[in-house]
Amino acid sequence: MAGNTLGTLFKLTTFGESHGLALGGIIDGCPAGLEIDFDFIKSELQRRKPGQSHIVTQRKEEDEVEFLSGIYEGKTTGTSIGFIIRNEDQKSKDYNHNTNVYRPSHADYTYDTKYGIRDHRGGGRSSARETACRVVAGAIAKLILKKDGIQVHAYVSQVAHIKLKKKYSELDLSKTDSNIVRCPDAETAEAMISLIEETRKAGDTVGGIITCVCKGVHAGLGEPVFDKLHADLGKAMLSINAVKGFEYGAGFDSIHKKGSELNDLFETKDGKVITSTNNSGGIQGGITNGMDIYCNVAFKPVATIMQEQATIDSAGEATSIHGKGRHDPCVLPRAVPIVESMAALVLLDHILRNKTTKLNELF
Amino acid sequence: MAGNTLGTLFKLTTFGESHGLALGGIIDGCPAGLEIDFDFIKSELQRRKPGQSHIVTQRKEEDEVEFLSGIYEGKTTGTSIGFIIRNEDQKSKDYNHNTNVYRPSHADYTYDTKYGIRDHRGGGRSSARETACRVVAGAIAKLILKKDGIQVHAYVSQVAHIKLKKKYSELDLSKTDSNIVRCPDAETAEAMISLIEETRKAGDTVGGIITCVCKGVHAGLGEPVFDKLHADLGKAMLSINAVKGFEYGAGFDSIHKKGSELNDLFETKDGKVITSTNNSGGIQGGITNGMDIYCNVAFKPVATIMQEQATIDSAGEATSIHGKGRHDPCVLPRAVPIVESMAALVLLDHILRNKTTKLNELF
Amino acid sequence: MAGNTLGTLFKLTTFGESHGLALGGIIDGCPAGLEIDFDFIKSELQRRKPGQSHIVTQRKEEDEVEFLSGIYEGKTTGTSIGFIIRNEDQKSKDYNHNTNVYRPSHADYTYDTKYGIRDHRGGGRSSARETACRVVAGAIAKLILKKDGIQVHAYVSQVAHIKLKKKYSELDLSKTDSNIVRCPDAETAEAMISLIEETRKAGDTVGGIITCVCKGVHAGLGEPVFDKLHADLGKAMLSINAVKGFEYGAGFDSIHKKGSELNDLFETKDGKVITSTNNSGGIQGGITNGMDIYCNVAFKPVATIMQEQATIDSAGEATSIHGKGRHDPCVLPRAVPIVESMAALVLLDHILRNKTTKLNELF
Amino acid sequence: MAGNTLGTLFKLTTFGESHGLALGGIIDGCPAGLEIDFDFIKSELQRRKPGQSHIVTQRKEEDEVEFLSGIYEGKTTGTSIGFIIRNEDQKSKDYNHNTNVYRPSHADYTYDTKYGIRDHRGGGRSSARETACRVVAGAIAKLILKKDGIQVHAYVSQVAHIKLKKKYSELDLSKTDSNIVRCPDAETAEAMISLIEETRKAGDTVGGIITCVCKGVHAGLGEPVFDKLHADLGKAMLSINAVKGFEYGAGFDSIHKKGSELNDLFETKDGKVITSTNNSGGIQGGITNGMDIYCNVAFKPVATIMQEQATIDSAGEATSIHGKGRHDPCVLPRAVPIVESMAALVLLDHILRNKTTKLNELF
Repeated sequence: MAGNTLGTLFKLTTFGESHGLALGGIIDGCPAGLEIDFDFIKSELQRRKPGQSHIVTQRKEEDEVEFLSGIYEGKTTGTSIGFIIRNEDQKSKDYNHNTNVYRPSHADYTYDTKYGIRDHRGGGRSSARETACRVVAGAIAKLILKKDGIQVHAYVSQVAHIKLKKKYSELDLSKTDSNIVRCPDAETAEAMISLIEETRKAGDTVGGIITCVCKGVHAGLGEPVFDKLHADLGKAMLSINAVKGFEYGAGFDSIHKKGSELNDLFETKDGKVITSTNNSGGIQGGITNGMDIYCNVAFKPVATIMQEQATIDSAGEATSIHGKGRHDPCVLPRAVPIVESMAALVLLDHILRNKTTKLNELF
Repeated sequence: MAGNTLGTLFKLTTFGESHGLALGGIIDGCPAGLEIDFDFIKSELQRRKPGQSHIVTQRKEEDEVEFLSGIYEGKTTGTSIGFIIRNEDQKSKDYNHNTNVYRPSHADYTYDTKYGIRDHRGGGRSSARETACRVVAGAIAKLILKKDGIQVHAYVSQVAHIKLKKKYSELDLSKTDSNIVRCPDAETAEAMISLIEETRKAGDTVGGIITCVCKGVHAGLGEPVFDKLHADLGKAMLSINAVKGFEYGAGFDSIHKKGSELNDLFETKDGKVITSTNNSGGIQGGITNGMDIYCNVAFKPVATIMQEQATIDSAGEATSIHGKGRHDPCVLPRAVPIVESMAALVLLDHILRNKTTKLNELF
Repeated sequence: MAGNTLGTLFKLTTFGESHGLALGGIIDGCPAGLEIDFDFIKSELQRRKPGQSHIVTQRKEEDEVEFLSGIYEGKTTGTSIGFIIRNEDQKSKDYNHNTNVYRPSHADYTYDTKYGIRDHRGGGRSSARETACRVVAGAIAKLILKKDGIQVHAYVSQVAHIKLKKKYSELDLSKTDSNIVRCPDAETAEAMISLIEETRKAGDTVGGIITCVCKGVHAGLGEPVFDKLHADLGKAMLSINAVKGFEYGAGFDSIHKKGSELNDLFETKDGKVITSTNNSGGIQGGITNGMDIYCNVAFKPVATIMQEQATIDSAGEATSIHGKGRHDPCVLPRAVPIVESMAALVLLDHILRNKTTKLNELF
Repeated sequence: MAGNTLGTLFKLTTFGESHGLALGGIIDGCPAGLEIDFDFIKSELQRRKPGQSHIVTQRKEEDEVEFLSGIYEGKTTGTSIGFIIRNEDQKSKDYNHNTNVYRPSHADYTYDTKYGIRDHRGGGRSSARETACRVVAGAIAKLILKKDGIQVHAYVSQVAHIKLKKKYSELDLSKTDSNIVRCPDAETAEAMISLIEETRKAGDTVGGIITCVCKGVHAGLGEPVFDKLHADLGKAMLSINAVKGFEYGAGFDSIHKKGSELNDLFETKDGKVITSTNNSGGIQGGITNGMDIYCNVAFKPVATIMQEQATIDSAGEATSIHGKGRHDPCVLPRAVPIVESMAALVLLDHILRNKTTKLNELF
């Protein structure tokens, strides 16, 4: 029970179904005195919004957030911030056909089994629409991280077999949003877009990888032993719809190297401790070391396809289903701000948690 | 602060440094009336214990657990279970050489930066010795899971480039412990052992992958939206020392398939709902669907190598370090029971959490 | 930080200021399948509502709750329940005079000092208007408790020096709402009402005691050692605005008896274990014993009075303030449903927590 | 389940039964760099220890604490602090007579009902012996509070009908430990001691009140709306064995005053904001205002008496019981350090929580 909260000190609790009256959330633990940049929050929501380009779902959802509390005269007051996003385009009829049919690789069957009841419209609570609330909170977290000199960048680094060859350090991450697929390399982006277009025409879907990079994070964030920074980061990413894998630093590739090859040697540069390589991904023993954090998040292809699929209904009888409505052939372009939001939420929470670590900084 | 607790209802809180007086923990929320199989707990600890074979560290640690509370006349009483494991073989002098030197890719620098003070002996709290406590709690969790018909199996599926070709479903998982590397395929195991032997001779280390399979898990476990079962599972695995990546079901390979290829079609078999494939790894929308859960956990090579490495000391001055003492050339054989323990802890916690989901099952 | 959540398994998180756009909350962990009695929730809100009689504040707040999620076709779905209550009667001008003036015994100074910023209108987050959200969640909790045969009754047992002489067991608790002060004894009620009328005319305020009785609670609720049932109950009550004290069972009067007089002797009656007296208030060692739970909650007089009071402004300069607007001369009649709500929330949370206590009831 | 933890950032989790091998706990979240004054911890334990005078139980328990982790070379390292207290004087035979008999007003029946099993020896987990762990953690908390200029004083202010007439501000609190009953007024102390002596001779027990005063607490501690400082303080006190009531500031007496009499008027004195009276007990709106915090904690008479009492056994059959062994005729003298410990734990936790409140103090 009660799994709708993320965070320890900067806490986000959310609610809302895809086709209910509204989604929303409560941010508890936001420091007082933050000037809210409402335009920035809006722009972040627009990066996640359906209908933003021809390679994503054409659903129309304005995703306008309404803040109800915790902000006074444009500044946070330190009290809980309540917000809602009304559902405007509730074409539930698109979902009438699947009232009792379990869509393959969706959460229909599992919700039905767990709860004995479910709001079937658009996936209800299991819909990725829920992530809009994460973007709202993530945007506020980013505003605070900026005060601490931290930048969070995510981008699409792979779509199906089309893989961005360059490392994050070879890329101009400011170009991520210069194309609709959100890959900072123009050439690769083009190939990705073509593939997604083809996939959509075939009524199919593709997955891929989003890489996330956090720069400017100072050393010392993360808590031993269970709340290691990368463990909390991993959990946050894995909680995003359609995510199947997470790795940080050298990740799964670590196994192709020997210890002598993988170890990051310490050195001092301009009076600052750095490592000559960064296979650790900025995290050692679960605690940041001041180097860039980077990680990969694997998304499976969207489960809803415009093809006939065999399945069963809630009575266990064989039937089939054919996707209707307006769905994403590839969810990655819209997932970039979500990945950034999750990173920002985790980082900020750990920054706050780390504020009470050293006695001599307290009194 | 305060990251030494795992779980919501079945909670494990641990303490202890590698070379302090003792490690230990408190299990809170263990149901009352469980008969404790002390031999089983002991045998699980022995699977993790140093010195169990020639391919692991030759340190001598008996890892005898002493239960101090919560068990009366062999049965759990429902109150908190306190336990300790004394540190017997405290050869701290092996670590005298690195009092002020930051070992590459270890947590020395990050702990020092975070806390301003650290117990440098054997890595202190960042030592993998801490995982002994996880195995104690994991063993108790397994005893309970058995009552629910659940089995948790982990095995080494890859060491460096030597990869077990067969899927878990093609293996006899009861053979995992029949060899010292804990790979259920004899031939692959032999190759892995040879590689580890070579690596040790070279004073180097290698990493690999442990696959974990959970059978007999009924549908309905996992909590939307942040505490999805695989998110909690991922966090638990990522919190193990040296882990760099986690994937479940089709994992990162999902991106090489189209939605039409990856989707798991539902069918009814012998009156039970199953999916014809299981790319979902038994979890859909974060909730179990009754199929096997399987996941991969990537371990990097152990950071301590028997070679000279450049580094710095706590004053920032360049120096070098050469591993001493008795270390693992490959941590995977000993990590198998740890991975199983983390899976067991997460599953049990979610089983308990799921007990209050349906009103008509409550009253 | 982050103190806006109550409960472990049945969790209420709230937001909202007195004169912001809306108040609201999220209930997480509500079991699935509960038929929501919207009329009952409305009636509970009306018991708390301003303007319900001439002895309470004459502010007009309709307190209409809008449920945004977690309920589908009239039943809870097990997902988080979001709800809001719009603020309609935002006469903030009543508060313009105290923008920079610290009202005596209010939270103006403490909020200002803690946060460096505050929404001064109507007390902002510190306003008792926040308790409307508790009543919404409490009403839902009551609906579930009813399924378990539990009844929660609160009533006004003392206003200033006018004290209800009878014990709860001598009263007909169904008569509590038969008068506007919510004291089940008609005669005492009349005296209380007269006193409140006089007090209001004098521009002053009075406090008193609300007694709360929970019947039908089975044995076994409450968790040692910190989450004893009465400890959680006490915290919940003390978190209500204006509450200064809490006692349960014989309470403070226990000290006037010897152990031999106070001890409750066990006996068996009709096959059921009971105690011949109930000085324990239904709780022994922090765990319910099946007898009635009863407790007293002390409310101080409302701080806002219609008289001139000396105080200081935010610059520390001496000034004075005179209450304006529409305030309660005595908050107790409206606090009865709040006290009941807190009791219901705590009881339900502990019922859910207790569901995983015994192994043999789990599998 | 899982109620053995107190605190949010400074967390104490405990284990241990009265007659098991050991009690102990884990302190998680203790700031790094605190020099541990082991003598102070020992002296605090001695204030709670049995056998310290002729008016308390004559059991012999040395209560020697052994720290197992989290402290290196005398200083806290920021990692979890594990500690144990061995049970040395396990005269369980004193309890053989009550294996199946429910002692009146003890937790035997409720534990049995809740768990279906219990360690009956000496009350098992429900024994007040558990509070030794609170004193260990409380002593560490006090060491930190001292750095912040905070002092926590508790004293016995009432035993049965013998009431200390003076307010805390009229007393010399440094004299509390100058007599065995821990009442800072010599004359009253004498009367209390006589009463306890008489009571003991009669084989009976008496209760009373402990007053707790916290000085030097700066403004701003406490979190709206559920984690108000006095709510957390109340919960902590109510979780102590035998406590039946809690009040702070004017407490229950508030109801005998009008708002105009009770309100604390603000004024500026020597550049500091103070209130001319302090009926608020240093807490307004749940947040400290810089004035002294004071509260009363009511303890019932100890349930174990040296007299025959009627009761039932676990089969429900009528029987009787007569207290044996060495018990406290009055628990208050030994409860003084426990009350102080709970106050210290709550204050420190809220100090840490308050460290992330204001944005401009973070970056």
